[in-house]
Amino acid sequence: MEVFGDNSCPPSCNTLGFLQKNNSLDEKGRLAGQKNLLSCDNSDRDARFRLTETDFSNLFARDLLPAKNGEEPTIQFLLEIVDILTNYVKKTFDRSTKVLDFHHPHQLLEGMEGFNLELSDQPESLEQILVDCRDTLKYGVRTGHPRFFNQLSSGLDIIGLAGEWLTSTANTNMFTYEIAPVFVLMEQLTLKKMREMIGWAGGEGDGLFSPGGAISNMYSVMMARYKYFPEVKTKGMSAAPRLVLFTSEHVRDTIADNMTESKPNLQSHYSIKKAGAALGFGTDNVILLSTDERGRVIPADLEAKIIDAKQKGYVPLFVNATAGSTVYGAFDPINEIADICEKYNLWLHVDGAWGGGLLMSRKHRHKLAGVERANSVTWNPHKMMGVPLQCSAILVREKGILAGCNSMCAGYLFQPDKQYDVNYDTGDKAIQCGRHVDIFKFWLMWKAKGTIGFEQHIDKCLDLSQYLYNKIKNREGYQMVFDGVPQHTNVCFWYIPPSLRSMPDSEERREKLHRVAPKIKAMMMESGTTMVGYQPQGKNVNFFRMVVSNLAVTQSDIDFLIDEIERLGQDL
Amino acid sequence: MEVFGDNSCPPSCNTLGFLQKNNSLDEKGRLAGQKNLLSCDNSDRDARFRLTETDFSNLFARDLLPAKNGEEPTIQFLLEIVDILTNYVKKTFDRSTKVLDFHHPHQLLEGMEGFNLELSDQPESLEQILVDCRDTLKYGVRTGHPRFFNQLSSGLDIIGLAGEWLTSTANTNMFTYEIAPVFVLMEQLTLKKMREMIGWAGGEGDGLFSPGGAISNMYSVMMARYKYFPEVKTKGMSAAPRLVLFTSEHVRDTIADNMTESKPNLQSHYSIKKAGAALGFGTDNVILLSTDERGRVIPADLEAKIIDAKQKGYVPLFVNATAGSTVYGAFDPINEIADICEKYNLWLHVDGAWGGGLLMSRKHRHKLAGVERANSVTWNPHKMMGVPLQCSAILVREKGILAGCNSMCAGYLFQPDKQYDVNYDTGDKAIQCGRHVDIFKFWLMWKAKGTIGFEQHIDKCLDLSQYLYNKIKNREGYQMVFDGVPQHTNVCFWYIPPSLRSMPDSEERREKLHRVAPKIKAMMMESGTTMVGYQPQGKNVNFFRMVVSNLAVTQSDIDFLIDEIERLGQDL
Repeated sequence: MEVFGDNSCPPSCNTLGFLQKNNSLDEKGRLAGQKNLLSCDNSDRDARFRLTETDFSNLFARDLLPAKNGEEPTIQFLLEIVDILTNYVKKTFDRSTKVLDFHHPHQLLEGMEGFNLELSDQPESLEQILVDCRDTLKYGVRTGHPRFFNQLSSGLDIIGLAGEWLTSTANTNMFTYEIAPVFVLMEQLTLKKMREMIGWAGGEGDGLFSPGGAISNMYSVMMARYKYFPEVKTKGMSAAPRLVLFTSEHVRDTIADNMTESKPNLQSHYSIKKAGAALGFGTDNVILLSTDERGRVIPADLEAKIIDAKQKGYVPLFVNATAGSTVYGAFDPINEIADICEKYNLWLHVDGAWGGGLLMSRKHRHKLAGVERANSVTWNPHKMMGVPLQCSAILVREKGILAGCNSMCAGYLFQPDKQYDVNYDTGDKAIQCGRHVDIFKFWLMWKAKGTIGFEQHIDKCLDLSQYLYNKIKNREGYQMVFDGVPQHTNVCFWYIPPSLRSMPDSEERREKLHRVAPKIKAMMMESGTTMVGYQPQGKNVNFFRMVVSNLAVTQSDIDFLIDEIERLGQDL
Repeated sequence: MEVFGDNSCPPSCNTLGFLQKNNSLDEKGRLAGQKNLLSCDNSDRDARFRLTETDFSNLFARDLLPAKNGEEPTIQFLLEIVDILTNYVKKTFDRSTKVLDFHHPHQLLEGMEGFNLELSDQPESLEQILVDCRDTLKYGVRTGHPRFFNQLSSGLDIIGLAGEWLTSTANTNMFTYEIAPVFVLMEQLTLKKMREMIGWAGGEGDGLFSPGGAISNMYSVMMARYKYFPEVKTKGMSAAPRLVLFTSEHVRDTIADNMTESKPNLQSHYSIKKAGAALGFGTDNVILLSTDERGRVIPADLEAKIIDAKQKGYVPLFVNATAGSTVYGAFDPINEIADICEKYNLWLHVDGAWGGGLLMSRKHRHKLAGVERANSVTWNPHKMMGVPLQCSAILVREKGILAGCNSMCAGYLFQPDKQYDVNYDTGDKAIQCGRHVDIFKFWLMWKAKGTIGFEQHIDKCLDLSQYLYNKIKNREGYQMVFDGVPQHTNVCFWYIPPSLRSMPDSEERREKLHRVAPKIKAMMMESGTTMVGYQPQGKNVNFFRMVVSNLAVTQSDIDFLIDEIERLGQDL
């Protein structure tokens, strides 16, 4: 099978067996502005691929590049992969397909219809490898499906996807300008733009993309420690007094620990506790702050706990204000918290892993009012902004502190023997050595959508959440976990099956209600029609947490979810 | 432009405008074993893609899926991206192309021929996005080029690349079985296989893929601390005595700090110091061990330093034995170090980020003799095994310690309300919350190559290094940094330009020689013909460190490097 020329192409061109077009990696002419993309100009330019019939049953990895004559099978193999992937992309957006085809671990381990996960000494044919790729997708979860609501990260952005394909083809890392010149500069410019959105004058400051919100938050704690107790870097925590960190109690507590529980999908709030454990503070020194009924930290409680800690002789160091909590989508009142941090000279970090994206929306960015007063901010474009996983930024207002904190190289600024400005080498700022290229897909999406494209994305998702809220707030069989329009896209609610509706509140009813969401979720997964998360929180038994971050979602998908919950739950 | 049927296909089929083939994501029939891959069977199966002429100048991101009628432009856009990428792949392996087209940061920031890195409010057309993708690759570095020797990670494995494309299309994370069932199981099986290669009975133990060797090494230190001082997790480092960590001095020292210096490419040895700083031990409590002339830790020095630390009242906790150091490629004597660790009851970690791959080779695995006695092992398939970035494993012999160390969930084992076995949910073992899917490309490569394929890869790269060593060890104008056949693929040498050859050893000569490698490297980058790393080490002034991990490299590429060094360096 070949690609032949289209009708606009003189037949003589086709005798080449492939088409060549008017642009090339190596030539100076630029595509943009040129109209005839697919000219038959027979010049020394890149050939377009042609798909040929290839029997992969006798081909192996060793026959691909760099093997002699490996070019043709390499291209054909990659095109077969692309065929599999483009079909997957199409189905992802097709509501007539399932979100997932669930199987238990033991079923997949036993080998579904020949899908053998075990590794062996001998190679498999490329034909089998293609089958393995199809099976991997078949038994996975379509996180871009318009009815997948299970995670804060969802959707399948086509530009972002293209960016990831390119990133993996470039296969480099962010350690030095030398090996990633373009990506290093893109990271620098994008971080500056994000700092401008935060409101730091002139976009000044520093930052990095890190492997997720938990690591970004860990950086913030490390920087706070280095700012106030730099000697810890060399002497360890014993050089500092007993330091305490403050973060929202919207974390977990009695019921979560003692009752049956399903882990929240992305526990970014755990991350301060995880950082406390890892960095040598100890989880006992992570003090949880009380919240109001909407899950927002109560500033007076913060001040009381700071005073209490000081009275005990501890040293308050760091406050995490959450901008978009995982379960309720709550935004802590940053300005009031910042006042307290200034009063007591504490580092203020804003964990906007989930809510940071709202900074792109003129309508919703007021929810982060005061964020410009933070010392550091975590912001995960891979959540609310629909960037493919992973893409998380740690941003810091003060220049130099990130390198000061992590550099192991006293002579960092004095390396005149490279031929370029080594200030662009970012490796020494990171706790990693090599660092994955997470920037390109985000940069490319920003180019392709513009800031206004992200704004539209965010406004649309928040509108859909309000649609859901309006639909169920007074609907029979539903109860909201908290009153009022959600601040973020999180809508938290109980579905009350008919059998429980007339039952008075009691321990028995609570226990029964606690089992409803897990049962409905299990049936959803078995039927594969949709996925939504649930969890308990504080005194509240298991409830559904609906979130929207996928641009593919429409009101009809919200309607479908509600219909599905009622269909599956009516007889419980 | 369309894909038409090949000649074996009845013409009537082509009236459909596209071909359909005999396999589908959704159907039960399996491809393997079927001969006619590209039948014209007009059944309800996946359509193969067809490339059509598309004018992208009036199309924008908003016109792609999930937009109405977005399927066709989506597929066409992705195919254009694939066209760019497949051309890049071909050129990567083409020795007539450059390794890089170097530009200084200010040049790229000013906008090369319209390549504008700045982000704006308004969207750009898809035509411009395609140009941006071409330019991103044009000004980057071809890390898979057979003459790119700059990093421990190099090469462009086609199967691994296909795996990464699929991974980004699946766009999920490793937090729970629920959202990554296949990938979670692949990780589990692959880690078990790696533990078997290490030699732990039955492949028992635990592990994770982490975002790089530095984080993997950080895990090892955290686990050691948790094993001996579990109370640190809750109470912080003040609950423990002064703990010390030991690692090789092949790290950096006086000359590196005080002279002009180029950072080694991947400083995995820094990672223990970075971990010491981050985790609250303090870098002063990371004790560096003396090495022999080949860069291997001297066990007697370890024992002396343990005794010394104990006499000072400190508590030795952890020893890192390096299996393949970054610069010399040295393997510390694991068995002798393990004897000492057993005697003093210390945690033994083997950092095999670079050398772990040699476990796949029957010929070379003896260099890691004793690795089965380690408590934990770092092993980066993205280095010596040619897996695309990133792919790093932390493996641990004792079950439960990884979760014990990192779990924030006391009720971890008691969550019966999910409908599947939640022991497959790995999120709570990690310091991250979400975790990137790094396993699939590696699993797919292992399937496609078999264990023997990795063995051949490793044996071939080591043979090439020996070829280089034999070529230059007695060649005029070269001096080896250490004597003897290299243990790994690292070959460290000085090129002595004719002007320095007859000059007696002196401070002046040393200073001049120190500037030779940077000058040659700068010229190489300007001409774009090849790239190789250099750095000083200890008392040794800047020398070249040649490494081979790319299967595409041949003896002729080694010859080319030497010719190029001589061409560029002869007049220095």
